[in-house]
Amino acid sequence: MMSKEFSFVGKRVPKLDAPEKVTGQIAYGHDMKLPRMLYGKILRSEYAHAQILNIDTSRAEALPGVRAVITAEDIPDMRIGWARDHPVLKAGKVRSVRDEIAAVAAVDEDTASEALELIKVEYEELPGVFDPEEAMKPGAPVLHGEAPNNIQEKMRQSYYHGDVEKGFSESDVVIEDRLTLPFVTHCCMGTSFILADFSPSGDLTVWSSTQMPFLYQRDLSMVLGIPASKIRVIKAPVGGAFGSKLDMYPFEPICVLLAQRTGCPVRITYTREEEFVVGPTRQPVICDVKSGAKGDGTLTARQVSMILDNGAYSSWGATTPLVMMQTISSLYRVPNVKYDVVVAYTNNPYSGAMRGYGNPQATFVVETHIDMLAHELGMDPMEFRLKNANQSGDVTGQGVKITTCGLTECIEKAAESVTWKAKRAKPDARGVGMASLIHVGGGARIYPSDGCGSTVKVDDFGKVTLISGSTDMGQGADTVMAQIVAEELGVPVANVTVVNADTDITPWDVGAHASRTTFVAGNSARLAAMDAKSQILEGAAENLGEKAEDLDMKEGKIFRKGEPEESIPFEKMVRSKHFRPDGDIVLARGWYEPPTERQDKEFRGNISAAYGFATQAVEVEVDTQTGEVTVLKIAAAHDVGRAINPMAVEGQIHGGVSMGLGYGLYEELVVEEGQVLNPNFADYALPTALDMPEIDTIIVETDDPAGPFGAKGMAEPACIPTAPAIANAVYDAVGVRIKDLPITPEKVLKALNQKKESEEEK
Amino acid sequence: MMSKEFSFVGKRVPKLDAPEKVTGQIAYGHDMKLPRMLYGKILRSEYAHAQILNIDTSRAEALPGVRAVITAEDIPDMRIGWARDHPVLKAGKVRSVRDEIAAVAAVDEDTASEALELIKVEYEELPGVFDPEEAMKPGAPVLHGEAPNNIQEKMRQSYYHGDVEKGFSESDVVIEDRLTLPFVTHCCMGTSFILADFSPSGDLTVWSSTQMPFLYQRDLSMVLGIPASKIRVIKAPVGGAFGSKLDMYPFEPICVLLAQRTGCPVRITYTREEEFVVGPTRQPVICDVKSGAKGDGTLTARQVSMILDNGAYSSWGATTPLVMMQTISSLYRVPNVKYDVVVAYTNNPYSGAMRGYGNPQATFVVETHIDMLAHELGMDPMEFRLKNANQSGDVTGQGVKITTCGLTECIEKAAESVTWKAKRAKPDARGVGMASLIHVGGGARIYPSDGCGSTVKVDDFGKVTLISGSTDMGQGADTVMAQIVAEELGVPVANVTVVNADTDITPWDVGAHASRTTFVAGNSARLAAMDAKSQILEGAAENLGEKAEDLDMKEGKIFRKGEPEESIPFEKMVRSKHFRPDGDIVLARGWYEPPTERQDKEFRGNISAAYGFATQAVEVEVDTQTGEVTVLKIAAAHDVGRAINPMAVEGQIHGGVSMGLGYGLYEELVVEEGQVLNPNFADYALPTALDMPEIDTIIVETDDPAGPFGAKGMAEPACIPTAPAIANAVYDAVGVRIKDLPITPEKVLKALNQKKESEEEK
Repeated sequence: MMSKEFSFVGKRVPKLDAPEKVTGQIAYGHDMKLPRMLYGKILRSEYAHAQILNIDTSRAEALPGVRAVITAEDIPDMRIGWARDHPVLKAGKVRSVRDEIAAVAAVDEDTASEALELIKVEYEELPGVFDPEEAMKPGAPVLHGEAPNNIQEKMRQSYYHGDVEKGFSESDVVIEDRLTLPFVTHCCMGTSFILADFSPSGDLTVWSSTQMPFLYQRDLSMVLGIPASKIRVIKAPVGGAFGSKLDMYPFEPICVLLAQRTGCPVRITYTREEEFVVGPTRQPVICDVKSGAKGDGTLTARQVSMILDNGAYSSWGATTPLVMMQTISSLYRVPNVKYDVVVAYTNNPYSGAMRGYGNPQATFVVETHIDMLAHELGMDPMEFRLKNANQSGDVTGQGVKITTCGLTECIEKAAESVTWKAKRAKPDARGVGMASLIHVGGGARIYPSDGCGSTVKVDDFGKVTLISGSTDMGQGADTVMAQIVAEELGVPVANVTVVNADTDITPWDVGAHASRTTFVAGNSARLAAMDAKSQILEGAAENLGEKAEDLDMKEGKIFRKGEPEESIPFEKMVRSKHFRPDGDIVLARGWYEPPTERQDKEFRGNISAAYGFATQAVEVEVDTQTGEVTVLKIAAAHDVGRAINPMAVEGQIHGGVSMGLGYGLYEELVVEEGQVLNPNFADYALPTALDMPEIDTIIVETDDPAGPFGAKGMAEPACIPTAPAIANAVYDAVGVRIKDLPITPEKVLKALNQKKESEEEK
Repeated sequence: MMSKEFSFVGKRVPKLDAPEKVTGQIAYGHDMKLPRMLYGKILRSEYAHAQILNIDTSRAEALPGVRAVITAEDIPDMRIGWARDHPVLKAGKVRSVRDEIAAVAAVDEDTASEALELIKVEYEELPGVFDPEEAMKPGAPVLHGEAPNNIQEKMRQSYYHGDVEKGFSESDVVIEDRLTLPFVTHCCMGTSFILADFSPSGDLTVWSSTQMPFLYQRDLSMVLGIPASKIRVIKAPVGGAFGSKLDMYPFEPICVLLAQRTGCPVRITYTREEEFVVGPTRQPVICDVKSGAKGDGTLTARQVSMILDNGAYSSWGATTPLVMMQTISSLYRVPNVKYDVVVAYTNNPYSGAMRGYGNPQATFVVETHIDMLAHELGMDPMEFRLKNANQSGDVTGQGVKITTCGLTECIEKAAESVTWKAKRAKPDARGVGMASLIHVGGGARIYPSDGCGSTVKVDDFGKVTLISGSTDMGQGADTVMAQIVAEELGVPVANVTVVNADTDITPWDVGAHASRTTFVAGNSARLAAMDAKSQILEGAAENLGEKAEDLDMKEGKIFRKGEPEESIPFEKMVRSKHFRPDGDIVLARGWYEPPTERQDKEFRGNISAAYGFATQAVEVEVDTQTGEVTVLKIAAAHDVGRAINPMAVEGQIHGGVSMGLGYGLYEELVVEEGQVLNPNFADYALPTALDMPEIDTIIVETDDPAGPFGAKGMAEPACIPTAPAIANAVYDAVGVRIKDLPITPEKVLKALNQKKESEEEK
């Protein structure tokens, strides 16, 4: 590609905060201590569904070192969540084992824990419902009065384009299946955190692990009734988020209430068990899917009907159908699509945002059926995909405008990497499979603004500061921003400091979600850097008696275009602009709002300025004696527009593949009767380094015209197609189709035995 | 005045940080702790002048908990100070009792202190010189090889305008005296502080009590050889500075060196004794002054010759003659002036910047002589001052361009407040005296730029952030900045957050000195707010289909000019500008560089864009039995251009008068043979609340055309004329002239006795 033209874009730059992180010197929120700080802890429900008869906090209150104990009685009725269905502290009844009943603030964590044990809660247990299909049936226990069948009206959605009935009737092959997807969770290395502190004037400062500082400021204001103008949110270094820190949860207003009540700073950090039980999950899905194609392999129709387990309350999980919908409507060219979804309350832990935001589930469904259709038609699944692949310039039935699309190249390169043709359909226990994806890569307009603001200042020593609305939550955004600014100004990346995620200081941004940061914040940073550059060049032009447009900057030098040998050091020019009569400093601004639209009532519209594509091809070996699946290799070909930082792109792919591998083979949050049975890393089977296969990262660059230096977002995608690619490879290896993740040895063995039995029957 | 037109300017707004300060909740640097932080301490010289024969640190190094011990041997030869004459750690010889010989970093302060005791230094004591006049004599002990007579060439300066010889020859009265001024020191409630921390990438962050973050960044870079682009300076809340935190001192690079050596954050805080002995002082002055006037009271000539005690090294104290010079050349209209000054090294503690920066000394000299001339002429000293008072439009012999001057009004109002005519020259032991001043009030161009940068952002909730280069060191600058921005945008002051003094975040500013912040940073903040206002009004105009120039903002509302009854809330308009296609956020910039010039080689030039004036009139009572002077009342009339915050102006005047009162009557750092004998608040007689007289603060507004809303700087002036006003009042009360501060009972009694004797002799 064009990378050679760039000085810093396209270069392998280690994350700016890597040295601090690998040496353990970084101070995460958990390391934060303020003078007089108290420790908050939360008492949660013992039952998945129960009436609270009485709460006795008197013994806890009497414990020395306890500064406050609060229950729902002590606060106004505060409700949070997408459907405003979630009381911050529970009164009357509890609906899941994560439910917050009381909270304490004490001088140390041990005292706070002891106080929780001293709170006596009397319950009357209620029958619960733990399956979303059961929950919708008449007579099922009802969680919320305002949702009679455990469904809120706005949690039932339908989308269509074309006419699926007509599509199926014109098909040569139609298949129909039920697939199911499990509870999994984020497993952030850093657990959730908040530290709340009121100034004597009543101004609230919150240090948080949030991914969305500005919406968090708004949410805190709305629930607490404190004017947003009196709230400052500072994002502390985040030890992983993956969507789990996208929403505000009850512990956060609770912590603020404890700070308000005690007049002291209060910090709450989750234990690992809380992170598993109380944190949001990826929503389990029951999915009926029907797909059709013509004999030549042309897709004709796709009909999907989903039931999502919302858990007891609504977080962003209830809105993931909007992302699933895009994959169902737009991954591969399909003229007729219908999608119905219902999100039902259960007494399970509740579902939230998690990397991919519904897309891993939707992609598992679509790509399983793509593979099955190909087999039904006797086609090579790769050829089938190539035939139906999206192309640059396509506008899908949903109105998704695909500006650049590297899907064909991704399919071909991933296949090549696993020597697809040579390995597929061989009569051994080895097999290859693949799956692709579409995902927003140029923002996602789900809020009135999808923009980001930036300022750039350059000091007298050539030190550049980018103050950016963007949020680095470990994904490396700061480094990419620094590269973009460095490229534009022609100064080393090490000279660029990135300041972000402090609502008092940084310009607005909607937050880190939808893989939008490189694209949106990157464009914003670039605009600010371009403004700074023009300020410097104008200054230089005046000093040198040249025209600004005849000058250029690179490698820390300013020179006449085409004459780099005669140059003036960058910082010297900045100083000479500053240190002269009527001088000025370099202080620039940038604001970028992607040219997108919100979806209409029928869910149509182009919500992103660009779209990312990818194909992962995997080779597996199945132990037919044990059912164990070993992934030998994953080739991950991702269309990222342009890799601003190939090392960071690879890191995203490695991390995503690990997450996808866990989703495909190992991970499941085991929830029985609403109780989480494996809330720890010993029992929750997160893949370790030893479980990781060889990964071939293949960067496909399509140079998107709207992206900063051509880049598109690529963070979420890496985890999305891995599981269906594995499932498809298992089918190629041993001829069994696992439709229920994870693909455990038990399931494979059972399927192999059934297959054997059914073959013997024939 | 015009104050009624304003919503927030001219209003009594309590300091924004007052609640945090009065409740003790503010975290000063001394409250800062970082993980792994070590405590640094410094071993200082036992002698005022000695050869170091040997330093044995072995026992200190062996002490458990000690992480580093450094001496001059461990570091390159690093020199700091205005004349680069000050080694950071001393090798070879020590020149004063404050000299840094070794430094340790240890896990706690006790261990660090113990380690200091274990360092064994062998000295050979050298003869010292403790009087600057003695120091200049041939044969005096020489401190620095490069300054043979204890004078650096650049520490000898001469200024003139007109021809003093001619002036004296045309005079009807000429008087000549020697006046002397003592060592005094700042007595900040918060002692000096630094915390230095290196990131694993080698980036240095320094939290400091500095008044000049950007010059400090440069100075640290220069002495340490670390690129300034790798240094971030953050000003912690400062517990008073008054000039003492204007320079960088050895403990600061020492702390950085300890952090570098240990790989840990290191904090150094001064003990109260260190603050007295090691901190800079106001320079003692020996001054010969000669003044002449005509019979009608017209000043003819002023000739001043000064010797300053520099102490052993050069800090900014050596440059205070530049400020003294302005008062000598320009306070009252004097056609002929000559000023010679020499700054001599001694083995005393060294002199630095202190509120007024030489002006208290110069004003004591000038105003004593003004008073004496009036008496010689038989004129009312008030009338004499009025006759010679500076006037708006004057350009003085030094090139000082006086745009607005309220001196006449100040003299009249201060006199009126103490019922001057009624009380003066009465034959009782009570008396009135007055003194005036001139001081820069519109910046002071001593550096290639005297500017300040600002950004203003407005969030969706109407919260306004000013990111300002200015430095609040307790003087209340943030509050004044907030008022200026609030006034311009028509939003409550409480909605404005001021972020300052972090070199990575805030735009450049030269620092808090020369009473420049309200004027320079205020103009900058106003420009940024005006930019923000125009962004909002342009957005509103588009939305409303109006012209921006037809709209106005006030009281949180936007309306058609003249039609405030029909309005749209400010924050709603900001949101509607943001939340629309092609929207934008409010993100503005300001840069203000005052239209001034650096002095030429003959010290001529207009270094400030405005000048402040004041007159303080005092009434005293003298106990003729004990010599004790009691100040009954101080009327302080200050021309401040406009009082942005009258409460803050009064606070400055109260604090300044207290400092001036101490200078006049009580304070002296007693230094004998280079040893400070009273390094504590028990022995150093700082005035307490009980010592304070009634203070009548009289704000004179001259609405300076260059100032923000007409304001001029007024912070330093309040301490400047108090001492001479008291001395003049003592003369009026009992007829004795004390020419040597402080005016202790002993001196008064001695003078009364001498007067009595001389009267008896007659």
